[in-house]
Amino acid sequence: MAPSTSADPTLAHRRTRARLTVRDAAGAPLSAGTQVQVEQVRHAFAFGNIGFDMVALANGETGAAPDSPFGGASDATHLADLWFGLYDTATLPFYWGGFEPVRGRPDTTRLLAAARFFADRGARVKGHPLVWHTVTADWLRELSTDEVEAAQRDRIRREVTDFAGLVDTWDAINEVVIMPVFDNEEHQNGITRLCWERGRIATVRMAFEEARAADPTATLVLNDFNMGTAYECLIEGVLEAGIQVDAIGLQSHMHQGYWGEERTLAVLDRFARFGLPLHMTETTLLSGELMPPEIVDLNDYQPASWPSTPEGEARQAEEMLRHYRTLVSHPSVQAVNYWGLTDDGAWLGAPVGLVRSDGTPKPSYDALRGLVRGEWWTAPTTLVADADGTVEVDGWLGDYRVQVDGRSADVSLGTAGPATVDVTL
Amino acid sequence: MAPSTSADPTLAHRRTRARLTVRDAAGAPLSAGTQVQVEQVRHAFAFGNIGFDMVALANGETGAAPDSPFGGASDATHLADLWFGLYDTATLPFYWGGFEPVRGRPDTTRLLAAARFFADRGARVKGHPLVWHTVTADWLRELSTDEVEAAQRDRIRREVTDFAGLVDTWDAINEVVIMPVFDNEEHQNGITRLCWERGRIATVRMAFEEARAADPTATLVLNDFNMGTAYECLIEGVLEAGIQVDAIGLQSHMHQGYWGEERTLAVLDRFARFGLPLHMTETTLLSGELMPPEIVDLNDYQPASWPSTPEGEARQAEEMLRHYRTLVSHPSVQAVNYWGLTDDGAWLGAPVGLVRSDGTPKPSYDALRGLVRGEWWTAPTTLVADADGTVEVDGWLGDYRVQVDGRSADVSLGTAGPATVDVTL
Repeated sequence: MAPSTSADPTLAHRRTRARLTVRDAAGAPLSAGTQVQVEQVRHAFAFGNIGFDMVALANGETGAAPDSPFGGASDATHLADLWFGLYDTATLPFYWGGFEPVRGRPDTTRLLAAARFFADRGARVKGHPLVWHTVTADWLRELSTDEVEAAQRDRIRREVTDFAGLVDTWDAINEVVIMPVFDNEEHQNGITRLCWERGRIATVRMAFEEARAADPTATLVLNDFNMGTAYECLIEGVLEAGIQVDAIGLQSHMHQGYWGEERTLAVLDRFARFGLPLHMTETTLLSGELMPPEIVDLNDYQPASWPSTPEGEARQAEEMLRHYRTLVSHPSVQAVNYWGLTDDGAWLGAPVGLVRSDGTPKPSYDALRGLVRGEWWTAPTTLVADADGTVEVDGWLGDYRVQVDGRSADVSLGTAGPATVDVTL
Repeated sequence: MAPSTSADPTLAHRRTRARLTVRDAAGAPLSAGTQVQVEQVRHAFAFGNIGFDMVALANGETGAAPDSPFGGASDATHLADLWFGLYDTATLPFYWGGFEPVRGRPDTTRLLAAARFFADRGARVKGHPLVWHTVTADWLRELSTDEVEAAQRDRIRREVTDFAGLVDTWDAINEVVIMPVFDNEEHQNGITRLCWERGRIATVRMAFEEARAADPTATLVLNDFNMGTAYECLIEGVLEAGIQVDAIGLQSHMHQGYWGEERTLAVLDRFARFGLPLHMTETTLLSGELMPPEIVDLNDYQPASWPSTPEGEARQAEEMLRHYRTLVSHPSVQAVNYWGLTDDGAWLGAPVGLVRSDGTPKPSYDALRGLVRGEWWTAPTTLVADADGTVEVDGWLGDYRVQVDGRSADVSLGTAGPATVDVTL
């Protein structure tokens, strides 16, 4: 296997040398020698995790049942602090079966509160997923295929419209590779039937068209767990069909073991070839025993007890650092969403969290925080304006707060390398 | 898994009830009571095998080296008799690396003789393959990617033009699913590089466009060994891109064991969904030990000795009958090409043949012949014209010879069920 031709471990593609011209409200530049406080407030890169555990918290509920098989921790207040100490992008659950178990009674109000909970605290919010055959609405089974399609289109428009301005990124459609031939259920669901009869590309087109029309500013992701030739072929076909995909989502659950750098970079290079941003949408690394390699559908393995172990936690911390370094080194990757902060209520009961079920952080939490909010974080600094009234920020790409004499402005520094930016206080 | 909704074990879709109106050269119908001899001369369904072993024979060569890793038996005269006793469609080798090892010196003359050898004896001839990354020309490695593309286009046009009228079917491109990411070689070949840089669909388009332009009457096949979601996704993308594919080729080498009816029908249903004819292009069933299931690339397993055994031969004969019955029962299947008549020189040294290395037929030969030229063959018959001068042929779809008083005509009966056909003697 050839080494990646794209990755750059120096991370130069993640750093800015932005020359800020700071002006007052009247447009006058700073006098030479003026002190300027510069503080990073968020990464440009999306460091995400699911926010499922916080839906109940955001709605002031106690003892609520989980919304989905993914996430449902019991002590969310403490978790929220840990969440915001490390992450800046929340994925919220829009599984149709959980969101609208009874037709016409969607869970919009609760999810709006959850989305605001994150947005108010400075996090970006992503919705997952608009179309998926699993955990879909049971009542679709009774409908004709035309009716399934109409219901699915309505649902996409409704959610994307209702959450515009709060949710800026959607998994428009999930796991299309297997969608039409999914047979891990006794009675075929409505979405598998739709995809079998209409075809994968037609179903993808439906998802992207409806979501795009409802919110042209949203980032729409094609998401899959297949990391092989099938997903490559699907993407080529979708792009050839003229469907505008904003990012390619790669799930990368690693219940059967850390991929390692070589395989990770090979996967990234294969999918980077399409020229689109890559989102690592569902990343997991275990701090306990691994799932046996012969399991094909991860859902088929759910032992009664799956503990986090000291050795497993040490391994997870090391692999977490290696994996994030690898992902961030590849210029095509724009987001990494981890799939679960805590082991409490984690998918399949697996010890994937960075926090134990008792609420204490694992070594992986501190290790990753040291990277994301330490090594990769621009420390608050005081700069001094030069003769032109400018200061140079040499730091990590992201959002910054600029302050002069108690007046402040926020600015996004998103271009790698040298740049010039105007800031008005 | 749901039972196939398409297959019909009664094979009604393979039979005709054609009412022939037979006229003399002046256009006058037969008188009532005239005797008409009707004889089937070929199946409409293509029962094929490779004809690689006969290339040397057709060119009067003795002791020739094999053209390719596939086929190169030493006693072809005897083999040819066995071949024509069972098959009606020959696949000939156009592997670029063997066909044109030195640029500008293609093996056209020898292959033309081989194609004529089969055509003169009533067989259809197919060429395999026009584009493939394996056994491709080594000299492509030295060319730029633009030059590789130009050379590949030239080669397609040249072969399809030179063989027009003799070769009516081409595997236009082979194994595209793996083509751009094929890494089972030390130095990357030119075609893998082309497909990586241009994309799978662009490479498929190139193959079909060039071949179509060179011979608009040819049947052009997209061929792959992948029987899963990857190939499904590729096909959807190719069709969505507007590329006209005439048939979907499914390789189905079964070195690791017979699929059985259920899996076979499930595969057929999945690919029949695209509404195109299916060609089983490379079918094999072993009469010896099976290849271990953990082998992924079949080329990675080539034991020093791989004998045909009595138990294996009994099993192969039974599976051969079951498999052909299954394939012929599915209306989408139009061709089955078996990959090797004899074990002598067979691919990987595996005992896939219907004939042993010593030239004696295995039980599978007699069993399949009993089906193809027995149970599924319309026996020669004498019919008597009715008052309208017509006779009804109740038989298997195919080509027939009609004779009256020493005058004869050939007629194709290709429509299942009732039909009316005019025949002029």
